[in-house]
Amino acid sequence: MPLTRYAALKKAFAANIGGAENRQRIGQTYRACCKFLSKKRRQPLRSLIPGKTYFAFQRGKRLSRAVNADLFVADPAEWMKFEAALARGSLTQLGPDRITRIVYSVAISFFCYIDLTKDRDQKTPATFFELLISHLFAWRLGVNPTTRIQVLNLDMETWLPTDYIFNLGDERPKFHLPIKISTRERVIQIWAHQRVLDGVFGAGRFLGTPVISGETKTDAKKKEVIEICLPEQWRIYQMHIAQLKRVYYLDVPATYVKLNDVFPPIAVKSFGHFFFEADTLSA
Amino acid sequence: MPLTRYAALKKAFAANIGGAENRQRIGQTYRACCKFLSKKRRQPLRSLIPGKTYFAFQRGKRLSRAVNADLFVADPAEWMKFEAALARGSLTQLGPDRITRIVYSVAISFFCYIDLTKDRDQKTPATFFELLISHLFAWRLGVNPTTRIQVLNLDMETWLPTDYIFNLGDERPKFHLPIKISTRERVIQIWAHQRVLDGVFGAGRFLGTPVISGETKTDAKKKEVIEICLPEQWRIYQMHIAQLKRVYYLDVPATYVKLNDVFPPIAVKSFGHFFFEADTLSA
Repeated sequence: MPLTRYAALKKAFAANIGGAENRQRIGQTYRACCKFLSKKRRQPLRSLIPGKTYFAFQRGKRLSRAVNADLFVADPAEWMKFEAALARGSLTQLGPDRITRIVYSVAISFFCYIDLTKDRDQKTPATFFELLISHLFAWRLGVNPTTRIQVLNLDMETWLPTDYIFNLGDERPKFHLPIKISTRERVIQIWAHQRVLDGVFGAGRFLGTPVISGETKTDAKKKEVIEICLPEQWRIYQMHIAQLKRVYYLDVPATYVKLNDVFPPIAVKSFGHFFFEADTLSA
Repeated sequence: MPLTRYAALKKAFAANIGGAENRQRIGQTYRACCKFLSKKRRQPLRSLIPGKTYFAFQRGKRLSRAVNADLFVADPAEWMKFEAALARGSLTQLGPDRITRIVYSVAISFFCYIDLTKDRDQKTPATFFELLISHLFAWRLGVNPTTRIQVLNLDMETWLPTDYIFNLGDERPKFHLPIKISTRERVIQIWAHQRVLDGVFGAGRFLGTPVISGETKTDAKKKEVIEICLPEQWRIYQMHIAQLKRVYYLDVPATYVKLNDVFPPIAVKSFGHFFFEADTLSA
């Protein structure tokens, strides 16, 4: 049932990426996932991350990925409130934290549904997450993204495949949006792509604003959750490869929050903040 | 039996990375793989790569990865000749093409053995390939590699994990050696790591010389082989992220050979050439 809803979303998605129809279909998928998960047992996990509590959904012998108990809300009405607020164009009443929880719940409920029903399927969750986040960016920025960009460089002419790119038009910023469920040691790719955009088009023309779900890893045997973080490497990448404007997370890793306080800082925030600061990011 | 030989190689490898014992154990692994594969059927593949012929080894329903028929030699005596030449310190008689064929055969025979005996095991072939190539680099350069490097940067002090690094000492070059079975779209990581080394330590201090097995992909149903190449992206990475000194392949992709002839060129060569040009690469 969630998979049917997801298929409908995917099929019609490109017609109007930031449109209300996609938002409705995302809501229907979330509703179907909530229904599916409501009958599943919640297995508590031992969280090795200070201040965070996790559980996993269980179905027979299968265990879902870790779910942040403080962020997860299994309530389709929350998405409808978010939808109504987006339709009104006013998110102030909801605020960044509640928006983060809603988007986290939509994403993680789908991931867990796939974990409990499919073997080794990494692609379906990744695609759903791309649809969810690129829809929200397209709504907020008011333009549709592309995933390739033309490079004209003297005698060289080619198309460069990219993550999601939002071009706001003349004299306005362009956004470079990598969307990842988690990054771990592959994170260097995000900085490298930003470097290519800076090099080809000039520094400052693209604001790098990756959106990542989280960095948790569950040891299924020990029922333990950890976060895999590389804060010192991030600092070296930010100093020596390229500068990302923001790194947004749905479940912000504790270790990366501290990067806001080092110098030079890396701005790591929960995704809900994007909706409130999108217009001022280029300043 | 090949796995026992591999386990012995892996266990004692670090004691003397460029040493003769490792070379003997590599030879024993190769011999065991040749024996195993000699009884297996060779299934011809339809090569969509002009001028290259491929087959796969078959065991019941399992099919190995594609083997380049012109490069593959199932003859342990070849490795012994290579061993003898290395012991003498003179490779001139063998020449770069024969060395490439020997190293290719050692690598691909082990990969095929794993393909036919294990499920979804990507780690064992990757580790064997790292041992094989890092051994040969250590022999040729006369120093042992490290896989992390200390970064001292004003108030920041940290260890950066890296690919294989060979430090030849004062006033001499350092080598940055990523070792990959194939790269595909993950290749940007190699340039990004080179960029970090250039940024932290200064441009030109590390010669980037990745060694890659090949870029073939087999469609098991159609029994077709293709090469997955991104030459235009490589050019953009080489111009805008960092400069690699060489890209060595065991089975050089036809498309990448042409990068030697564009301007600015990227030097893509078969791995055997490394043994003859290692001393002059810093010039």
